[in-house]
Amino acid sequence: MEEQVELVGRAFVDHFYHLFDNDRSSLSSLYQPTSMLTFEGQKIQGVDEISTKLNQLPFDQCQHVISTIDSQPSSFTGGIMVFVSGSLQLAGEEHSLRFSQMFHLIPTPQGSYFVQNDIFRLNYG
Amino acid sequence: MEEQVELVGRAFVDHFYHLFDNDRSSLSSLYQPTSMLTFEGQKIQGVDEISTKLNQLPFDQCQHVISTIDSQPSSFTGGIMVFVSGSLQLAGEEHSLRFSQMFHLIPTPQGSYFVQNDIFRLNYG
Repeated sequence: MEEQVELVGRAFVDHFYHLFDNDRSSLSSLYQPTSMLTFEGQKIQGVDEISTKLNQLPFDQCQHVISTIDSQPSSFTGGIMVFVSGSLQLAGEEHSLRFSQMFHLIPTPQGSYFVQNDIFRLNYG
Repeated sequence: MEEQVELVGRAFVDHFYHLFDNDRSSLSSLYQPTSMLTFEGQKIQGVDEISTKLNQLPFDQCQHVISTIDSQPSSFTGGIMVFVSGSLQLAGEEHSLRFSQMFHLIPTPQGSYFVQNDIFRLNYG
């Protein structure tokens, strides 16, 4: 059970940031109408609004490098909590930005997961 | 609803770090036997084990300074997700340590909340 949670957490993180860095518009497939995103303190709800926000971020090409992934089962929902730390390299910028992000993944009837809760913060030194 | 979630998140954060900095052994009141803590990658389960871990951390006096608190409702559980960033000042140390921490709070029958999921990470620059 513990191992399964770790594996799902890592697979999700790989998938999420691969889409973010290579095909950002496809991230909408990971959210649903109930999903919530808090991005640097800004609250956004629903797959359409979240997709719009992610596609309108003021940078085009970027690369996420993951430092840590911590996953725990989410009791009462059959879901998974995933906590990520890493750095974000923007194209043309010299320095990368440290970030932390958490996801609450909820199982779908199709045997996959969607993102119900997503909170993102840059870490200022 | 949104406002209530913000208020509960902030009140919890104030309470949690006040206890951590002033009466660390009392933190056990916030966890239950089902609770999970991942502390710098180390997984700990259950109120007794979590309490032991927190009380045996290799520093005595400390002060948490909170930078950001982001809260969202946790659908399906009636709970709250809380994401915190801040810095940790250890007594006798010159520099403070940046950290991020997330909590999944679940309502109790008594109308309060307990910590079901707790993930803590120091942010290295």
